[in-house]
Amino acid sequence: MADNPNCDLKSLSPLQLFQRVTEQGEKVRALKAGKAPKDEIDAAVRMLLSLKLSYKAATGQDYQAGLPPKDLVLINNGTNKEEDEDFVDPWTVQTSNAKGVDYDKLIVRFGSSKIDTDLINRIERATGQKPHRFLRRGIFFSHRDMDQILDAYENKKSFYLYTGRGPSSQAMHVGHLIQFIFAKWLQEVFDVPLVIQLTDDEKYLWKDLTTEKAYEYARENAKDIIACGFDINKTFIFSDLDYLGTSTGFYKNIVKVQKHVTFNQVKGIFGFTDSDCIGKISFPAIQAAPSFSSSFPQIFNGKENIQCLIPCAIDQDPYFRMTRDVAPRIGQPKPALLHSVFFPALQGAQTKMSASDPNSSIFLTDTPKQIKTKINKHAFSGGRDTIEEHRKYGGNCDVDVSFMYLTFFLEDDDRLEQLKQAYTSGELLTGELKKVLIETLQPLIAAHQERRKQVTDEVVKQFMTPRKLAFEF
Amino acid sequence: MADNPNCDLKSLSPLQLFQRVTEQGEKVRALKAGKAPKDEIDAAVRMLLSLKLSYKAATGQDYQAGLPPKDLVLINNGTNKEEDEDFVDPWTVQTSNAKGVDYDKLIVRFGSSKIDTDLINRIERATGQKPHRFLRRGIFFSHRDMDQILDAYENKKSFYLYTGRGPSSQAMHVGHLIQFIFAKWLQEVFDVPLVIQLTDDEKYLWKDLTTEKAYEYARENAKDIIACGFDINKTFIFSDLDYLGTSTGFYKNIVKVQKHVTFNQVKGIFGFTDSDCIGKISFPAIQAAPSFSSSFPQIFNGKENIQCLIPCAIDQDPYFRMTRDVAPRIGQPKPALLHSVFFPALQGAQTKMSASDPNSSIFLTDTPKQIKTKINKHAFSGGRDTIEEHRKYGGNCDVDVSFMYLTFFLEDDDRLEQLKQAYTSGELLTGELKKVLIETLQPLIAAHQERRKQVTDEVVKQFMTPRKLAFEF
Repeated sequence: MADNPNCDLKSLSPLQLFQRVTEQGEKVRALKAGKAPKDEIDAAVRMLLSLKLSYKAATGQDYQAGLPPKDLVLINNGTNKEEDEDFVDPWTVQTSNAKGVDYDKLIVRFGSSKIDTDLINRIERATGQKPHRFLRRGIFFSHRDMDQILDAYENKKSFYLYTGRGPSSQAMHVGHLIQFIFAKWLQEVFDVPLVIQLTDDEKYLWKDLTTEKAYEYARENAKDIIACGFDINKTFIFSDLDYLGTSTGFYKNIVKVQKHVTFNQVKGIFGFTDSDCIGKISFPAIQAAPSFSSSFPQIFNGKENIQCLIPCAIDQDPYFRMTRDVAPRIGQPKPALLHSVFFPALQGAQTKMSASDPNSSIFLTDTPKQIKTKINKHAFSGGRDTIEEHRKYGGNCDVDVSFMYLTFFLEDDDRLEQLKQAYTSGELLTGELKKVLIETLQPLIAAHQERRKQVTDEVVKQFMTPRKLAFEF
Repeated sequence: MADNPNCDLKSLSPLQLFQRVTEQGEKVRALKAGKAPKDEIDAAVRMLLSLKLSYKAATGQDYQAGLPPKDLVLINNGTNKEEDEDFVDPWTVQTSNAKGVDYDKLIVRFGSSKIDTDLINRIERATGQKPHRFLRRGIFFSHRDMDQILDAYENKKSFYLYTGRGPSSQAMHVGHLIQFIFAKWLQEVFDVPLVIQLTDDEKYLWKDLTTEKAYEYARENAKDIIACGFDINKTFIFSDLDYLGTSTGFYKNIVKVQKHVTFNQVKGIFGFTDSDCIGKISFPAIQAAPSFSSSFPQIFNGKENIQCLIPCAIDQDPYFRMTRDVAPRIGQPKPALLHSVFFPALQGAQTKMSASDPNSSIFLTDTPKQIKTKINKHAFSGGRDTIEEHRKYGGNCDVDVSFMYLTFFLEDDDRLEQLKQAYTSGELLTGELKKVLIETLQPLIAAHQERRKQVTDEVVKQFMTPRKLAFEF
C-alpha cells in the first residue's frame, strides 16, 4: 500500500474502505504482536488513523469493527469529494502535492482567517517594527481574532503569549525553531509575557517512554528553547508533569475544560477511538488550559481573564478550536491564534520535518559537515535533470526544498528575490542554491549551539520556576 | 415506569430493551431541555444508565442510538438470567429485596472474598484487640488480599489506609460515618497512617456545582470527618482540586493509570457513554492514584511501594478492581480492600441512604427532635400491622430498618441479641424498638456535633496540609 493513504482512497466504496480499515487494523495488531520496529508500527498506526478518517469522511460514521457500513447513510454522495484533500491533524501532515499543503483550502476548512496585507500593516503600525519575515513571506498565514488582539492593544490592553512543544526526544530540528523564533519576536515587539508548555505527559501517553524520560526530554528541550534568546524576566517554561503538581490554578482549568467536552467531541476532532487510553482522551484539556491566565496565578499575580495569543503550526489548531468553543462556557476569553505553515521535510513538502526520521531533518546538534551532507544528499530539488535543461528551462522554486528553507531563514528580502529569479531563469544551479542554504544554516546552527552551551541546569531551573514575570496587567 | 429498572426488564427482548433505552434517552433530553428539577433529571439519567446496562447484559454490546440490535449475538440466551439480580455501581444501588442487596451473590459477581470467622480471628490475633462490631456483625463482609496485609503485618511490614468521600453537599448523614468510624478503628489497632480523599473534582464533574462550591463542601465535610476523632499526626485529608496542584507525585500516578486504561474498559466498568464528558471518563484514575504511596511524597518521605488498604462501601469496588488491574503494569503493589454493606435508607434496604433525599437520611446536623421524628415517621418497620398480630407472630428484624441501624451503632452485642429476640418473639413493639434506636443515635449525633464545634478552620487547614506523618516505613 502506498505511503500516502489519500492518493487512492477516493475511488473506494464505503464497504471497500471498511475492508481496508479492517485489514490495516489486523496489520497493526500483527506488527505489535510480532514486536516489530517502533517506526514500522507507528507508520502502520498512522495509516490506520488515515483510513479511519477516510472511512468517516465517506460514511459520516465512525468505523466500528465487525459492523460493515451497509446501513449507513452516505454524506459525501459524490457532491463533496475534493480530489486533492490534504490530511492535517496534530499527529500527521500529508499531501500529494509537492508544493505542500494547500493552505488557502485549509483556511476555509478550518474556518480561520487569512493574514492579509492589511493585518500585517496593522501589526507594523501597532508595534512600530518592520513585520517579521515570517509575516512578510506568508509563513504565518492564518489567524483567529488577531484583529481583536490589536484593537485591545491599541487601547493599552495587553495580552500574553502561549506556545509549546511535545518533548518526544532530545533532538530538536530547525523546523522546531519556527514557533520559538516567532514567539520571541512577538514578545519583543509587543513587550508581553510568554508561557511555553512542554507536554511531557502527552509524550508519555503517546510514546513508549517513562515519565522520567519524558521529563528529561522536556528539560533538554527547554535548553534549546532558552538558547533562542528568551528574556528570563518575561518567559515561563513548564513541563506538565512538573507544573501540574505546583500550580493552584492549572488543574482547576483542566477539569473545567474536561467537564465541557464530551468523548463524542474529541472523537470528532482528534479521531480518538474506544481503544484509546483515557489519558489520550482527556489530554486535549491539558493543552487547552494554558490559554487561560488563571492557570498561572504566580505569573499574573492571580489576575484572571487576561487575553491569550497562541502562535503555533496549523496542525495544532484542533486543540484550540476546541478551547475556543469551551472558553465562553467556563467564563474565559477565547485565545487568539496565529498559524504557521509546516516546515517541510528535506525530501519535499508532502510531509513536515519529523525528528523521528533523521534523514528528513536537520538537527540543532548537527555539525557543519552533517548539515552540508544532508542538504546536498537529501534536499529535494526543483532543478532540472541536466545542467543544459536547467539553463534552458530554469528551476522550480515552488517545490525546491532548499529555496523553501531559505524563505524561512534568509532575512534579506532582496537577496531572496534575486535567488528566486536566478534559479527560476536557470542562471543559478541547484548546487549553487544549496550552497547558499548551507552557508545560511551553518552559522545559524553554530550560533545556536554556542548559546545552548551557556544554558546551565541552573538557568533551566530558573526559567521553569513559577514566579511573577516583569509585567503589570 | 417503576423506579426499580431491574424488576421487569428480564422479560424484554433485546429489541424491546433497545426501544426502552431510546425512549428513556428522549425523556432525559426532554427533561433537560425543559429545565426540569435536578432530582427528576438525575433519576431519569440513573434509569437510562440502568437500561443501558440491561441492554448490554442482554446483547453483549453497548447501546448505540439508531442502531437496533437485530444483528447482535445474544450472550445471555436463557442460561444466565438471575431473577433477582441487584444493581450496584458507584452511583446507584438498587434491589427488589427488602432485606437489601444479596451480598453473597455480590462477592461471587465481583470476585472478592468473604470476610469469614478465620479472617476476623486473625485480625484479632494480629492487633490484640476485640474485632470491631462492623466485623463481628458482617457489616464489613468482603475483602481483597486482607490475608496478605496480615501476612506482611505479622512480619513487621506496615501499610497505610486510604478512604474517601465525594463532597456533593454540606450535609453528611449517619451512613457516611461508617467508613470513617471503621477507618479510625483500623488506624488505631494497626497504628498506621490514613489518607482521606475528598473528590471535589468528581462532584464538580457530575453535579451542577462550581469548583469553588465543590471545594467549600470538601472543607465542610472535612470538619465532620475530623470530628470522628482522627489523630492529626496520623491523618492527611485532601481535596483533589487543591492537592493535585501541590503534590509532585499525585499527577504522575494519575497519568500512569490513564495510560493503562482504555475508554472501552471504563465503558465496561462504569457504563460511560460517548456523550459523557472527558472529565468523567478520565476521573477513575484520580480515585485510583491515592492507592499508591508515591502519590504522597511528603507523607511517606518519598518512599514508594508501601502497601495500601482501602476500607470502602462495596459500590466503590469498580474503581479499585480497575486500580488492581493497572497496578502491576505500572510497577505498583495492588491495594487491598475491605468492603462494607450499604447503609440502608430509612424507607428500607432496597436503596442506600442518600443525602439528596432528606426523608431517607438522618443528617449529622439533625436535632434530637428531628432524629426522633424521622425515625418514628419514616423508618421502615418489620413489625406487624396490629399490636395483636405483632404479639402473636413477632416482628421481622431482617427487613426492619431500626433494627438494621442498631446493628451499625449499638456496641453491646448482648443487648442487640436481646432486642432481636424480643422483637422477633413479639415481646418488643415497633415503637419500643424505634425508641431504643432514637436513644442510641441522639447522644451519638449530639456528641459528634459537640466535637465538630471544636474543629476550627485552622484545624481543617492543618489536616489538609501535606506533611510528614508520624510513621517510619
